[in-house]
Amino acid sequence: MSTADADPRVPGRDYGEVMAASRYTYLGPEGTFTEAALRTLPEAATRELVPMVSVPAALDAVRAGEAAGALVPIENSVEGGVSATVDELASGRPLMIYREVLLPIAFALLVRPGTSLDSVKTVTGHPVAQPQVRGWLSRHLPDAQWESAASNADGARLVQEGRFDAAFAGEFAAATYGLEPLVTDIHDAENAATRFVLVGRPARPAAPTGADKTSVVLWLREDHPGALLELLQEYATCGVNMMRIESRPTGQGIGRYCFSVDCEGHIADRRVGEALMGLKRLCSGVRFLGSYPRADEVRPTVRAGTTDEDFLGAADWLTRCLDGRGDDLRS
Amino acid sequence: MSTADADPRVPGRDYGEVMAASRYTYLGPEGTFTEAALRTLPEAATRELVPMVSVPAALDAVRAGEAAGALVPIENSVEGGVSATVDELASGRPLMIYREVLLPIAFALLVRPGTSLDSVKTVTGHPVAQPQVRGWLSRHLPDAQWESAASNADGARLVQEGRFDAAFAGEFAAATYGLEPLVTDIHDAENAATRFVLVGRPARPAAPTGADKTSVVLWLREDHPGALLELLQEYATCGVNMMRIESRPTGQGIGRYCFSVDCEGHIADRRVGEALMGLKRLCSGVRFLGSYPRADEVRPTVRAGTTDEDFLGAADWLTRCLDGRGDDLRS
Amino acid sequence: MSTADADPRVPGRDYGEVMAASRYTYLGPEGTFTEAALRTLPEAATRELVPMVSVPAALDAVRAGEAAGALVPIENSVEGGVSATVDELASGRPLMIYREVLLPIAFALLVRPGTSLDSVKTVTGHPVAQPQVRGWLSRHLPDAQWESAASNADGARLVQEGRFDAAFAGEFAAATYGLEPLVTDIHDAENAATRFVLVGRPARPAAPTGADKTSVVLWLREDHPGALLELLQEYATCGVNMMRIESRPTGQGIGRYCFSVDCEGHIADRRVGEALMGLKRLCSGVRFLGSYPRADEVRPTVRAGTTDEDFLGAADWLTRCLDGRGDDLRS
Amino acid sequence: MSTADADPRVPGRDYGEVMAASRYTYLGPEGTFTEAALRTLPEAATRELVPMVSVPAALDAVRAGEAAGALVPIENSVEGGVSATVDELASGRPLMIYREVLLPIAFALLVRPGTSLDSVKTVTGHPVAQPQVRGWLSRHLPDAQWESAASNADGARLVQEGRFDAAFAGEFAAATYGLEPLVTDIHDAENAATRFVLVGRPARPAAPTGADKTSVVLWLREDHPGALLELLQEYATCGVNMMRIESRPTGQGIGRYCFSVDCEGHIADRRVGEALMGLKRLCSGVRFLGSYPRADEVRPTVRAGTTDEDFLGAADWLTRCLDGRGDDLRS
Repeated sequence: MSTADADPRVPGRDYGEVMAASRYTYLGPEGTFTEAALRTLPEAATRELVPMVSVPAALDAVRAGEAAGALVPIENSVEGGVSATVDELASGRPLMIYREVLLPIAFALLVRPGTSLDSVKTVTGHPVAQPQVRGWLSRHLPDAQWESAASNADGARLVQEGRFDAAFAGEFAAATYGLEPLVTDIHDAENAATRFVLVGRPARPAAPTGADKTSVVLWLREDHPGALLELLQEYATCGVNMMRIESRPTGQGIGRYCFSVDCEGHIADRRVGEALMGLKRLCSGVRFLGSYPRADEVRPTVRAGTTDEDFLGAADWLTRCLDGRGDDLRS
Repeated sequence: MSTADADPRVPGRDYGEVMAASRYTYLGPEGTFTEAALRTLPEAATRELVPMVSVPAALDAVRAGEAAGALVPIENSVEGGVSATVDELASGRPLMIYREVLLPIAFALLVRPGTSLDSVKTVTGHPVAQPQVRGWLSRHLPDAQWESAASNADGARLVQEGRFDAAFAGEFAAATYGLEPLVTDIHDAENAATRFVLVGRPARPAAPTGADKTSVVLWLREDHPGALLELLQEYATCGVNMMRIESRPTGQGIGRYCFSVDCEGHIADRRVGEALMGLKRLCSGVRFLGSYPRADEVRPTVRAGTTDEDFLGAADWLTRCLDGRGDDLRS
Repeated sequence: MSTADADPRVPGRDYGEVMAASRYTYLGPEGTFTEAALRTLPEAATRELVPMVSVPAALDAVRAGEAAGALVPIENSVEGGVSATVDELASGRPLMIYREVLLPIAFALLVRPGTSLDSVKTVTGHPVAQPQVRGWLSRHLPDAQWESAASNADGARLVQEGRFDAAFAGEFAAATYGLEPLVTDIHDAENAATRFVLVGRPARPAAPTGADKTSVVLWLREDHPGALLELLQEYATCGVNMMRIESRPTGQGIGRYCFSVDCEGHIADRRVGEALMGLKRLCSGVRFLGSYPRADEVRPTVRAGTTDEDFLGAADWLTRCLDGRGDDLRS
Repeated sequence: MSTADADPRVPGRDYGEVMAASRYTYLGPEGTFTEAALRTLPEAATRELVPMVSVPAALDAVRAGEAAGALVPIENSVEGGVSATVDELASGRPLMIYREVLLPIAFALLVRPGTSLDSVKTVTGHPVAQPQVRGWLSRHLPDAQWESAASNADGARLVQEGRFDAAFAGEFAAATYGLEPLVTDIHDAENAATRFVLVGRPARPAAPTGADKTSVVLWLREDHPGALLELLQEYATCGVNMMRIESRPTGQGIGRYCFSVDCEGHIADRRVGEALMGLKRLCSGVRFLGSYPRADEVRPTVRAGTTDEDFLGAADWLTRCLDGRGDDLRS
């Protein structure tokens, strides 16, 4: 591990506010999938991209005003950091998600130029990468010894230094370390991908695009048996589809959880707003993590009775009932 | 049956608007439990009380502006009319409930003066009264023959005329028909009571008293298997306790129902208003039948997270989230 | 009303067991829709059909062993008795439903021969018939006076006696009373029908036909807010569609209900048996009223995961798990 | 990292069946919290305890018959491996959990003898340990540089070798590496603990103790919006309290999850068996991971209607109903 990794702030850099606005941090080191994901964002071209040693370090730079945003993996990563991201977003000073990026999982086997597959006796990579390539290894390199590296990029560096014969990493890392991709597109699971999020300080969410996602962290009021059921019911009653739910320990002891939940739709959609208000009442705490465009651009199915018009119509009807002018015209 | 019963409007009476405001109709004839219930209301002393031949007739007089209100039985009656009331409120021109009256069910056995229990061979009463006194009859008059009358009061009249030996009716009916109560406080079931409602044309509901009830009629959007479950869930999610649910045929064929539902609370309570809006979105039709004081004056238990403050706090929080200023302070 | 009506047992008849087996009672008098419904059953041709004065009387004859079965209206009747039927089945000595009959609601206007529509000034019929013909009356006989009769058939008798000009009754009643149908097929609501059930003493239910219905009465364990919701959830969890739910007062006081519920399927279907067991555990009381063929012969939709094979497969899997041989083959 | 770590099987060891029965693997290296947890089990004293390089390696040794059991962290670990454990149990050849161990999270700051707190400039430890001690670090060693090690034990080794001044590890690791604990009982969160499970090949679960836990992995039949809700409802309907739910990617692409769920009770408890059968029907796949004693020895609250007697009583009642002998005695 390099000294640069040890200190989240790269020495000698100016961390003034002016610079911060043009700076994005990310889970480093350079040459990782996270960097590749970050570079898919158009605005990345005009920002200073700063690798950080860990997810907390990347996010703390944003909290401290030293960077405008941070790109970190949040789901199904091949480089770890996912739990750290979920936990970091749930605690400490609030942050918000403004964008998500999906990157297919596909490894290259990087070797020093001239190395043949037969001569590969030792391989390395991030521990989280191992399960993603285990099947491929057993078929093509059954006798190779695996040893974990601190990151996939670090594994590439160790191959460059001659400590291992081959490293699993992104194909894009080859050039950086003077290696060549011997095999590409290695991934045991079909359709596997990592999801990354671009995180910033809290501000007004971006305008709805029609294909949005809303993320929250929920703390149950009490650990009574049906609490989680009630929470899911709140989404269902409002016609909001849940996309992901993850329980995370709160650090208050085994058996105490909070829930990280993504749902379809934007906080400005009435059905989502309604569900969020219900959760706010139901839960002991709700942290709004943002509404942002879905990377897959899928538009949600809105159930009958849960469109914005339905909510406005119901509110209008209630007002009329309070005034003695309710009606019961069937729809 | 008298001619007066046949025509809902008593002939020769002036049905001008001025008079209407001081007139209450009720399910007649005179001397029934409904009249007794009506007389428990303080304002009854200053109104003209007009017996009508049927529940529809009593309500139509209100619809037509010929009466300011109508008192009709709505639950567990000993004189019938309950289904008629529920169905009438669900169809035709809208009406609203403003008051409810509870009257314990207790019959007197009315006889001509001088009649002894031993000499009672035939008894009469409204068919709905029979199940309420069947047990008593089998113990005290096992051999007496029962024949139904058009109403309990009409049964008393038939005893007066000598066609039967005894009639089950309210003790209050004895004087009207020159009879005497041979036995009083007859009722097979403990705690049985009839519930009556005072119905008027739609107007602003009375102010909340803290011990209120809200009534609606609900038509399901479609007869899909879980529709009723969703409807009940809507109440549960808002923390509103349901007090009564009754399915009624819609007249659209066997298997098509609407639901008459009473719940705790007043439409001006946020949790009730929220539930009503949800039902409005969920159902193909909702008829608001009113929020009015509970006769039993029981105040509802309000679940944590469903007070007015909780709803206002959640709405305020949502506004702040939309503005990038949400917080997650735990309660 | 005739004396025969007053005594549920027709005098002079032999009520021995032998006779009882060939006797069906029904809600009388003769000439009502209930008799017409009973005569649609093939076996009615070989039974003695005995009209009774009331639903309780018809059912008590079965309880007492004086009749093998009783046909009584249970839903959406034009002659009343529906609540009585539901309540009678819920209380007293247990009975079971073995068959149902659907009869379209259609009245004839019966008059003395030679009477023209213009000359009809007074009309009669059962009070429950009135709402079914009210629209027709206001269009064709707006000035006619309505007076209720004890039954539709009794109304016909009163026309025969000259006390009224016309009676609403079944067309089949005309001959009995020497009347003629002036207008036929009168019914305000489209598709309206009455449902009748054939009731007998408890025995093994008939074999499943594939298009069956199961009826129960449920008493909630406690009147806690979510009890009804849990009950409906029990059906939903097992994939059993509810067809009808009706709340009925238990006679234990206002606000205490039991629920009369019909669902799709036969008790011998695993999903229905499973739901019934769940209800048995959940409720303070469950009365099984029978599984019998649906009159409409509609076969239920069985949700994935709730076929008999699914239930048997799950039970088999559980046994294997207990034995350390569970598997997780995906379906 | 040592060569021993690279090969899951320690060279030169006899892996015959006889030996295997007396061998337990665990997530190594020696001196970690996992080893400490394993040594709390009485039977550990008589087994050969073999450290493995990773959770998959520890579990594969069991699958291959080379060890009788494996102890691995499954929840809230300070040494990682938790997601790996959950994922490994959900895929590959089935395994079962037979025991759980709870170990409070408490670090010691290990230094070479004679080192004072003032002189600590560099610290190390497993990356997962960092968030657990971050608060302590910022208060007591705000200027110390953190660098991650492959494990807490490995960090201790690096301090022994002089590459760092101090390592966060379990106090029990001090002796192994010739270090001394400068500070003990370091943990930012109150009541934090790691949960470990002892895993073996599938067999009959241990007998119920009355304070048991049951673990499963569930795959939803389809990703329809309410699927997770239905799943939780299944537990609720049977009165089974859920203790932990964790969503894990199935490797079939972003947005496809399976659920790792722990609930109260033993598969031999009727309510648990019933819930499991329901899940088996509802889900496309269910993997039973075992019923085993709870480390906290807390006995579950069993809701009315869900005792073994209730289930047996309901089954008995159903049999009687099928035979025409159902009753409705209220409980």
